[in-house]
Amino acid sequence: VSPLSSPAPRGEFDLIARIRERTPEAAHVLRGIGDDAAVLAPGAPVPTLVTVDLLMEGVDFTLPPATPRLVGRKALAVNLSDVAAMAGVPRSAVVALCLPKSWSEGAVLELHAGLAELAAEFDTAVVGGDTNAWDGPLVLSVTVLGECTSHGPVLRSGALPGDWILATGAFGGSIGGRHLTFMPRVREALAIHAAAGDALHAAIDVSDGLAADLHHLLEESGVGAIVDADAVPIHPDAVSASARDGRTPLEHALSDGEDFELLLAASPEAGRRLLANPPCAAPLTRIGEFVAGSGCLLRAADGSRSPLPPLGWVHPVGGTAAR
Amino acid sequence: VSPLSSPAPRGEFDLIARIRERTPEAAHVLRGIGDDAAVLAPGAPVPTLVTVDLLMEGVDFTLPPATPRLVGRKALAVNLSDVAAMAGVPRSAVVALCLPKSWSEGAVLELHAGLAELAAEFDTAVVGGDTNAWDGPLVLSVTVLGECTSHGPVLRSGALPGDWILATGAFGGSIGGRHLTFMPRVREALAIHAAAGDALHAAIDVSDGLAADLHHLLEESGVGAIVDADAVPIHPDAVSASARDGRTPLEHALSDGEDFELLLAASPEAGRRLLANPPCAAPLTRIGEFVAGSGCLLRAADGSRSPLPPLGWVHPVGGTAAR
Repeated sequence: VSPLSSPAPRGEFDLIARIRERTPEAAHVLRGIGDDAAVLAPGAPVPTLVTVDLLMEGVDFTLPPATPRLVGRKALAVNLSDVAAMAGVPRSAVVALCLPKSWSEGAVLELHAGLAELAAEFDTAVVGGDTNAWDGPLVLSVTVLGECTSHGPVLRSGALPGDWILATGAFGGSIGGRHLTFMPRVREALAIHAAAGDALHAAIDVSDGLAADLHHLLEESGVGAIVDADAVPIHPDAVSASARDGRTPLEHALSDGEDFELLLAASPEAGRRLLANPPCAAPLTRIGEFVAGSGCLLRAADGSRSPLPPLGWVHPVGGTAAR
Repeated sequence: VSPLSSPAPRGEFDLIARIRERTPEAAHVLRGIGDDAAVLAPGAPVPTLVTVDLLMEGVDFTLPPATPRLVGRKALAVNLSDVAAMAGVPRSAVVALCLPKSWSEGAVLELHAGLAELAAEFDTAVVGGDTNAWDGPLVLSVTVLGECTSHGPVLRSGALPGDWILATGAFGGSIGGRHLTFMPRVREALAIHAAAGDALHAAIDVSDGLAADLHHLLEESGVGAIVDADAVPIHPDAVSASARDGRTPLEHALSDGEDFELLLAASPEAGRRLLANPPCAAPLTRIGEFVAGSGCLLRAADGSRSPLPPLGWVHPVGGTAAR
């Protein structure tokens, strides 16, 4: 929508019509793509979750090695990971696009297909969007709405001293390709929450980096943490990355980011039960414990402790002051 | 969030902390900025509205003449206009940003202030966002959630042959500045809907252009329309634009777009009542009628009719076929 550019010979409307045709109906969508707003039926009286993530070509992915299909997938997946970090159920998504004018309609439909496939896998309805083209690179912004379960949301702010730090999966080296293909831990979070109930105190997903996101959780909860260096699950991709750049696999695991695994705070009793009877197929590991105070320490095998700063991606905004 | 760029010396987190401080609490927001997702309290069992719009520097605005404050305002306003076009009540917004790395923190806070002021005016809570920086121009994507009233949503698809075409306000020449400062017709839509009830059959807001958006409504409703040339409210800005480029004020009014006025379909009885007892201060004008069939005709003062094509902005996507 713009009065500042002259009309182009081809509109977005044909494309939207094609996307609309390819969008399955969903019981809770009273009106999806094609009106001024989507209309969603009232659901159960549980809290609504809302999360948005924006991806930029050249920053969050490059084409290649990414493909339009993988980029569409990732744009939804990062949002589903946020819903997982609240132990919520994703329900609906809207998609805003800046498409490079050079893109073919086929490329746009590939992007949509990647997003739609993952949406279908997680019973999430694509209910609307805004499609634009420009001379710049690809930008995608996806907003996901979800619902809490009857157990309520799991916030970042609930970790208590003494709680165990649990992690799903393994960490490091996602830049090798996993950042495009990871499976958001929606089902795992729901299974863990159902098993632990109120003893699951806090959760965050790892996008910025294990250490950085753990620090976010610590700040919101007002606690500190000790991480056992030997306990951090190292992804094989971190070993590969280490072989390339000489940084240790552990450094990669602690700082690379975009693992989209969950860090969880659970009472020791719940932690023990979860590890004894894992409620999900994904590996679940105790990587340390929350303590009174603030900040984070890394505990070596010999028991020695050193500060673990919020290593990881720091979003470049502004640029005036040093961190 | 990116493994593809190296960390910058300053993070988004300080900025987010400042925005969080400046964000007022709202009763329905159980958890706003600062977690993986916002948590909204369940409301009345009415349908939820969801709409997203994305604005791009150089396409939807230029800086100058726009300012960061006006751009922040516009990014929310266009979404509120979509909620108005459903006769809904806006409730919550999330904001995704690509900020040019050259922007100061002060400029970002100005952008936020423009958005926050309009949000406050419409009781809309800013509940979350995603802040990114890059070497490209400014991109903003805002998603707004709203609620239907007990009268339900007003769709694009409900216009019936014989219905009157009503328009709020006046049209044309918004590029002169009004596209940045318009007041979304949220209150007007609610007042008209409350007065007309079920006799308000359809609505759309004019972003692409009066003729173009009327065509969208016609297509969704499966009807045609006749617009009375003399009845179209011409904005003074359209007269100014005409003086500059020689196109008639009517042409500007029909095709310029970004008026963010409403086009409404009401039964003749309701239309008569609305014009006799206007439920809102904004001008309400009968500009024509819906008819059986398809397409749109422009009726001159002498009764002669000519086709009125979907003049207005056509979003440039793809680029292979002529319209």
